[in-house]
Amino acid sequence: MYRSHTCGELRASHIGVEVVLSGWVQKVRKMGALTFIDLRDRYGITQLTLDESKRPELLNTSLGREFVLQAKGNVIERSSKNAHLATGDIEIEVTELKVLNASITPPFTIEDDTDAGDDLRMKYRYLDLRRAAVRKNIELRYAVNRAAREYLHELGFLDIETPFLIKSTPEGARDFVVPSRMNEGEFYALPQSPQTFKQLLMVSGYDRYYQIVKCFRDEDLRADRQPEFTQIDCEMAFVEQEDILNTFEGMIKHIFKAVKGIDYTDIVPRMTWDEAMRRYGNDKPDIRFGMELQNLKVKREALYAPMANSGFQVFDGAETVLAINVPGCSNYTRKQTDELIEWVKRPQIGMGGMAFVKVGTDGTFKSSFDKFFDAAALEALAKQCGAQADDLILILAGTEEKTRKAISELRLEMGNRLGLRKSDHFQLLWVMDFPLFEYAEEENRWVARHHPFTSPKPDHIQRMIENSPVITDPANYLNHPYADIKANAYDMVLNGNEIGGGSIRIFQKDLQQKMFAALGMSEEEANHKFGFLLGAFEYGAPPHGGIAFGFDRLCALLGGSETIRDFIAFPKNNSGRDVMLDAPSSIDDKQLNELGIRLQPKA
Amino acid sequence: MYRSHTCGELRASHIGVEVVLSGWVQKVRKMGALTFIDLRDRYGITQLTLDESKRPELLNTSLGREFVLQAKGNVIERSSKNAHLATGDIEIEVTELKVLNASITPPFTIEDDTDAGDDLRMKYRYLDLRRAAVRKNIELRYAVNRAAREYLHELGFLDIETPFLIKSTPEGARDFVVPSRMNEGEFYALPQSPQTFKQLLMVSGYDRYYQIVKCFRDEDLRADRQPEFTQIDCEMAFVEQEDILNTFEGMIKHIFKAVKGIDYTDIVPRMTWDEAMRRYGNDKPDIRFGMELQNLKVKREALYAPMANSGFQVFDGAETVLAINVPGCSNYTRKQTDELIEWVKRPQIGMGGMAFVKVGTDGTFKSSFDKFFDAAALEALAKQCGAQADDLILILAGTEEKTRKAISELRLEMGNRLGLRKSDHFQLLWVMDFPLFEYAEEENRWVARHHPFTSPKPDHIQRMIENSPVITDPANYLNHPYADIKANAYDMVLNGNEIGGGSIRIFQKDLQQKMFAALGMSEEEANHKFGFLLGAFEYGAPPHGGIAFGFDRLCALLGGSETIRDFIAFPKNNSGRDVMLDAPSSIDDKQLNELGIRLQPKA
Repeated sequence: MYRSHTCGELRASHIGVEVVLSGWVQKVRKMGALTFIDLRDRYGITQLTLDESKRPELLNTSLGREFVLQAKGNVIERSSKNAHLATGDIEIEVTELKVLNASITPPFTIEDDTDAGDDLRMKYRYLDLRRAAVRKNIELRYAVNRAAREYLHELGFLDIETPFLIKSTPEGARDFVVPSRMNEGEFYALPQSPQTFKQLLMVSGYDRYYQIVKCFRDEDLRADRQPEFTQIDCEMAFVEQEDILNTFEGMIKHIFKAVKGIDYTDIVPRMTWDEAMRRYGNDKPDIRFGMELQNLKVKREALYAPMANSGFQVFDGAETVLAINVPGCSNYTRKQTDELIEWVKRPQIGMGGMAFVKVGTDGTFKSSFDKFFDAAALEALAKQCGAQADDLILILAGTEEKTRKAISELRLEMGNRLGLRKSDHFQLLWVMDFPLFEYAEEENRWVARHHPFTSPKPDHIQRMIENSPVITDPANYLNHPYADIKANAYDMVLNGNEIGGGSIRIFQKDLQQKMFAALGMSEEEANHKFGFLLGAFEYGAPPHGGIAFGFDRLCALLGGSETIRDFIAFPKNNSGRDVMLDAPSSIDDKQLNELGIRLQPKA
Repeated sequence: MYRSHTCGELRASHIGVEVVLSGWVQKVRKMGALTFIDLRDRYGITQLTLDESKRPELLNTSLGREFVLQAKGNVIERSSKNAHLATGDIEIEVTELKVLNASITPPFTIEDDTDAGDDLRMKYRYLDLRRAAVRKNIELRYAVNRAAREYLHELGFLDIETPFLIKSTPEGARDFVVPSRMNEGEFYALPQSPQTFKQLLMVSGYDRYYQIVKCFRDEDLRADRQPEFTQIDCEMAFVEQEDILNTFEGMIKHIFKAVKGIDYTDIVPRMTWDEAMRRYGNDKPDIRFGMELQNLKVKREALYAPMANSGFQVFDGAETVLAINVPGCSNYTRKQTDELIEWVKRPQIGMGGMAFVKVGTDGTFKSSFDKFFDAAALEALAKQCGAQADDLILILAGTEEKTRKAISELRLEMGNRLGLRKSDHFQLLWVMDFPLFEYAEEENRWVARHHPFTSPKPDHIQRMIENSPVITDPANYLNHPYADIKANAYDMVLNGNEIGGGSIRIFQKDLQQKMFAALGMSEEEANHKFGFLLGAFEYGAPPHGGIAFGFDRLCALLGGSETIRDFIAFPKNNSGRDVMLDAPSSIDDKQLNELGIRLQPKA
């Protein structure tokens, strides 16, 4: 027996008990004849006391940080109690001590605030995982996993495993592929999601399915993306959108309660995609704070004429002019506004500049474009923006999409600067009625915004069926009848992050075929890629829909972080490498030959 | 709302309630003005009644098997109740009927006893999954999953996800590999198990880990093997073998209780590998029945001289002579014994013949080798075998390994013929002290029987360290000092099937290095493949061990089957193909080029 108790378990009530503990040396302190060891395991830290005057033989052992010890001894009351430690009332008077394994000096300290950089932490991930800060993330992840399973089980969902070695059907992101040795020249693909399988399960009558499952996407990695990631993947049959929204709003609330102890009883607000774009310039708005977008090109309540003829070419000539009111910042200095201007000019934002209006507490206005706007014009502008005294109005002008994105980023940045985005303040939101299609400029065609199995809104089906997908005038793709077709698709947003997304699916073979055609897929290609699904739809497919949650992201947000890597036991870096394993790596010629492939540098 | 109740939910207490049901048409029967529809979903079957005299419009709908219907109506008492159906007391008097989706005629009937062969069922797996017999398997699988999680959670185990895109370190089975686009010319591998990761987690202090996880092995598929399969993968730190055996014996018993309602209170018997081989000729003996092996070359209790000098060359010249007593079969006819002789001569068994002795109820003996054995000799032989009156002694003679395998198979076959292997009779067994090494004839070297991380038995460590792994005399490899080194390794066996296996691991860097060397790995190769693990062992690795259960097999056995495919939602066939998807399949040149590989037929 290596231990009778863990290092987090002993209390004053154990005083007098003989115990055996095992764990790692966190710290060794020597005070005269006494040596104190903080012994650590997953459950906590317990102080061991070695008394040289009583048991000199114990001191023969050489000890260092991260040594693994087994100690036998008696629980005694601690003379100087430590209220910060759950075991702080007691210590162990050691009678026997055994080094189970030694340790060389770790490359960084195993403490909450470690001195190591990211690369070192990743290389020695097994040491990084010992830090309490990381351990709490991994434990939280398990708690979220468990809470989700509990909730779904109570509602009759079945966890059904779907295959990992499937067929490559790239549409959107790239597949990772796996050469088949037994079927030479052929490849499996790793699933980007179990999408078609969960739909087949609906066809099979398993009307409530879920899985917490790894998915794979061979994308050029942006910061904080992983080539393998985990989804809580769910699907239901005989449901309408409303059923799904209610079911999964319930799941997230259950997770809040079980994992964070938060009673999230508010109904989650809903917003159409159009509204989210208009009010926040973003399809995953952070609604923990206001600062909604003001469109100064659109006349509103007759307050202000659209800014087409101000004489200020930056506004007049722009496709759009968008503003936000930053509350309480009218006293921003020149240095501060200059710094914001530099911020929007960075390549990531890419604007040419920024205008601003300071709404003084004394009713005066000062702007960066006083030359073109008199006080009355500024007042009208401020009124149109709904600005209050002491607000700072920030204005960006330019082309539609770029300006919208930029002001949306600027809004989030100002939210950060004003401390309006607290990580322990959780605000959920449903965004609904997403566009069905997205324009792919490179190929001049429509692609599925969500995926090709998403159902158009019933009112919009005719528009899709009756119109050709061909885009004859690329410059005006927004005027194509498909541009405004909306889908029965919804995202759950938490604090400005998409944590889940789903849709009501197409379940009719003919509509699915029309959808494939709308995406420019020939009948042959559709049958090659998705023949099994079209086939399944011939044999009585029920109405169905579902949702998938990004499990890594959800855990990170619940843990008060936006960095998913901190919530994955063994993450990869931004080049998709596992630096601890040194993977990927070369394989030998024998393996290549068996697979019937060889290396050939990219053309 | 598509339904107010499921098709398995309504009882007499619902009579008078208006309900909405949705489901599939199982059957349509017409009796005069009445049409009866059996409507099916995952939960059961409910009878719908359409009355032409009251609602002629309902009959305008054309209906067929597997159509998806939505029906509104009133629950009424059934005139002729059906005691076989949970909903058999009621029926629905339909007032509104809607076809949600039509179905063409399915290629086979959706019934427990389907008329379809395996290939058809696999191609239309989404229809096969509708059958209640298959659905019960999938539901049982979920129940096992859940029971395992519950048990492990109560004991403080954490479900921690390990990566799927790892490093190729083939040692034993082949890896599936995944070309990396971002790291050209390099490959990930899919894990054969999370072995090294769970050990790293132990080093990291997560002392109780589990995962129900997909694993991958690119083997030539034998019947009922899958290239992807699921394990319940577990590891514990600060434990001895005894702790692990107790913990997981408890898990399996919990699963028996939760899933099958079986109180498995008996202590699971334990048997060393040596004993299992001697008594059953097999390292996973089915101990639901006796018929233990009798070695007629070994003198036992001075009853009978070893069969070296009987004058019967078949026995005298054989390396070994093994027998089993088949109880109550002394009346086997010539035809029956001839048929058994043919059975052992089949290529799968490969024996040259079989001898037998019939122990008459009247005290006489009859054998297939009467020429060489008189009655006294036969009696002595029967006595040595422990045969009783009316037994049939079956005897095989030949080389050690082949004969042992053959008699073991023959024993199982006789167990089947005598009905001694009932699928609802569950008998667990621990087999322990496995050999550490296995001789690989082709390469004339030692390979790890379990895996290279398994700890030798403490008493045998010196033997490993002090002796060279080199085998100078291949013909006598059994005399090499390594042949008899045993491991702290154990398998759990259920009804003659290995359902789980594990070991106490090596946790000392130097011993692990010696193990790699014993397997013929150079230091360079060991560092290239497992440097991360050797590195981790330098920083305070705790003693640890674990086990992994074959989840597919466990589910199959609990479901009374030995066919794992029936317990996997979307299995592959014996060529590793998913015939429903038609995967693996070719990928296009653009994909190949992006990956920096090209096809090259095997040399």
